[in-house]
Amino acid sequence: MLAPPEPAVLAAQLRSGDRRALARAITLVESAREADRARAEVLLAALLPHAGHSLRLGISGAPGVGKSTFIEAFGLSLLASGHRLAVLAVDPTSKKGGGSILGDKTRMPELAKSEGAFIRPTPSGRRLGGVARRTRDAIVVAEAAGFDRIIVETVGVGQSETEVAEMTDLFLLLIAPGGGDDLQGVKRGNLEVADLVVITKDDGDLAPAARRAESDFGHALHLLRPHATPPVLAVSALEGRGIDRALAEVERLAKAQNSSGAFLRRRAQQAKEALWAELSEALTDLLRDDPAVERLLPELERKVAAGTLAPAAAARAALAAFRRN
Amino acid sequence: MLAPPEPAVLAAQLRSGDRRALARAITLVESAREADRARAEVLLAALLPHAGHSLRLGISGAPGVGKSTFIEAFGLSLLASGHRLAVLAVDPTSKKGGGSILGDKTRMPELAKSEGAFIRPTPSGRRLGGVARRTRDAIVVAEAAGFDRIIVETVGVGQSETEVAEMTDLFLLLIAPGGGDDLQGVKRGNLEVADLVVITKDDGDLAPAARRAESDFGHALHLLRPHATPPVLAVSALEGRGIDRALAEVERLAKAQNSSGAFLRRRAQQAKEALWAELSEALTDLLRDDPAVERLLPELERKVAAGTLAPAAAARAALAAFRRN
Repeated sequence: MLAPPEPAVLAAQLRSGDRRALARAITLVESAREADRARAEVLLAALLPHAGHSLRLGISGAPGVGKSTFIEAFGLSLLASGHRLAVLAVDPTSKKGGGSILGDKTRMPELAKSEGAFIRPTPSGRRLGGVARRTRDAIVVAEAAGFDRIIVETVGVGQSETEVAEMTDLFLLLIAPGGGDDLQGVKRGNLEVADLVVITKDDGDLAPAARRAESDFGHALHLLRPHATPPVLAVSALEGRGIDRALAEVERLAKAQNSSGAFLRRRAQQAKEALWAELSEALTDLLRDDPAVERLLPELERKVAAGTLAPAAAARAALAAFRRN
Repeated sequence: MLAPPEPAVLAAQLRSGDRRALARAITLVESAREADRARAEVLLAALLPHAGHSLRLGISGAPGVGKSTFIEAFGLSLLASGHRLAVLAVDPTSKKGGGSILGDKTRMPELAKSEGAFIRPTPSGRRLGGVARRTRDAIVVAEAAGFDRIIVETVGVGQSETEVAEMTDLFLLLIAPGGGDDLQGVKRGNLEVADLVVITKDDGDLAPAARRAESDFGHALHLLRPHATPPVLAVSALEGRGIDRALAEVERLAKAQNSSGAFLRRRAQQAKEALWAELSEALTDLLRDDPAVERLLPELERKVAAGTLAPAAAARAALAAFRRN
């Protein structure tokens, strides 16, 4: 096995368009190993001046909604408009060494073959916070490598959509037409953060249901968010219908945000929040990994859940053990 | 000034029904002074075995919605059914030493005069996390003092409703009938956590609008939460109409939760989350108060917001300074 290249070398390689260097750089920033973290930060510091010049799109939708098919069609359309696209995935359910269906290149065969696209399978990760950090770093790497459109995709698990919405400029929610009550399966939080709602599978037998969903969600979103109603579009990725409209809508929304300054404010705010999330997570890790705290915590948690110990008192006890060490 | 009584004495006094001891105990658990915290925890440890036997109700609604009038009427109705009621307030906007309209006894004159009720003005507090902790502790004190119905009220500011929903068994959302688009002023998060929605001011000129709001919100909530649609009730606290129905609805919901075991699970989960919130907050305080970190942070935050430093790198720098100390 080759010795890992110096971060500066890796940075120069990926800036010059070397795909293997890009893949390696992302592997490096995704690594949880302490030694890799230090090298990753040197790399990120070198890349940061070249990052930030992309439009970052979050895309979420439950399994089966047709995310891959949509991203494939939407992505090819982006490439046809002269953009370069990186697809990253956030999947809190993927386990270390285990697989995840997200980001699997075989899901987007045409896009995977395209010169202008880069598809990154899901990183494996202990927990969501860490996955989110690694994805933020991967965005920086992809941007420095010249990708001007980034898609961060996620499934509707836990808080992952919120995390994705907090690291992207626009958030697209994909919804499949269902039978009867379409709002049923959709998490409300997603409807609140969506900048654009895409009804998928507007084709064949499902077309009437897709149109109905388009109108139902349009109505519900108008009620829910009268001052910031997101557009709702029915598309057929299979037949290619509506994809260009979705693309035009995304570019229009991005332009509007950009000219109002909302874009930069959102990113500055996201970066600050990311700093505090990192800090809070790192501190909690420090506490959790403390041997004295580790011995104490299970019993404290049990008592707190049973109502025999106040949460504040338990926190105080854990903190005291932590500070003694 | 009298020396503060020993926590054990205070516990015995408030258990015997001494109202001044109750007020003092709450003042003690609300105190942010380090010496008071230690005494507060002795007190809470003594009271905890006697706590937990109440129904905890969160009540939220924007200013002007008629919260005081509703709580007054609803509270008197509770007392008439033989309950003892404590009203606590969470107001993240109240500043140290400054006033807050929440919990003001003059807002609920009849209730304030009643033997079976205890109204606690809003504690002053630095920030929401702290306010939430103190309110959790105040609930324990009030329960140990024999109050079997607790109302925690809040205004719709920041995350306060979510915090209140996370420390109560049932969450009531109050909405005033408006002109035209009623859903407009209501935060979506509140609609999601509400166990019961109360439309206020179903009287006089506003009665038709109140009825319309009742139907509109009923419809919207059915769309939003098809599997857990909360009941919507129009009431007139002024004319006393609907108050007993609201009371019956609350008791019915509590009974249903209780018999399904959801009640205990919710409380155990709340307590564990409170522990981790306490820990995270205490750790962040520890970091913020560190002189080396204090010197470093403003510059780190500036760079992160400007996009010239990665959040992870900034966090690492702050953490390194913290660990050196």
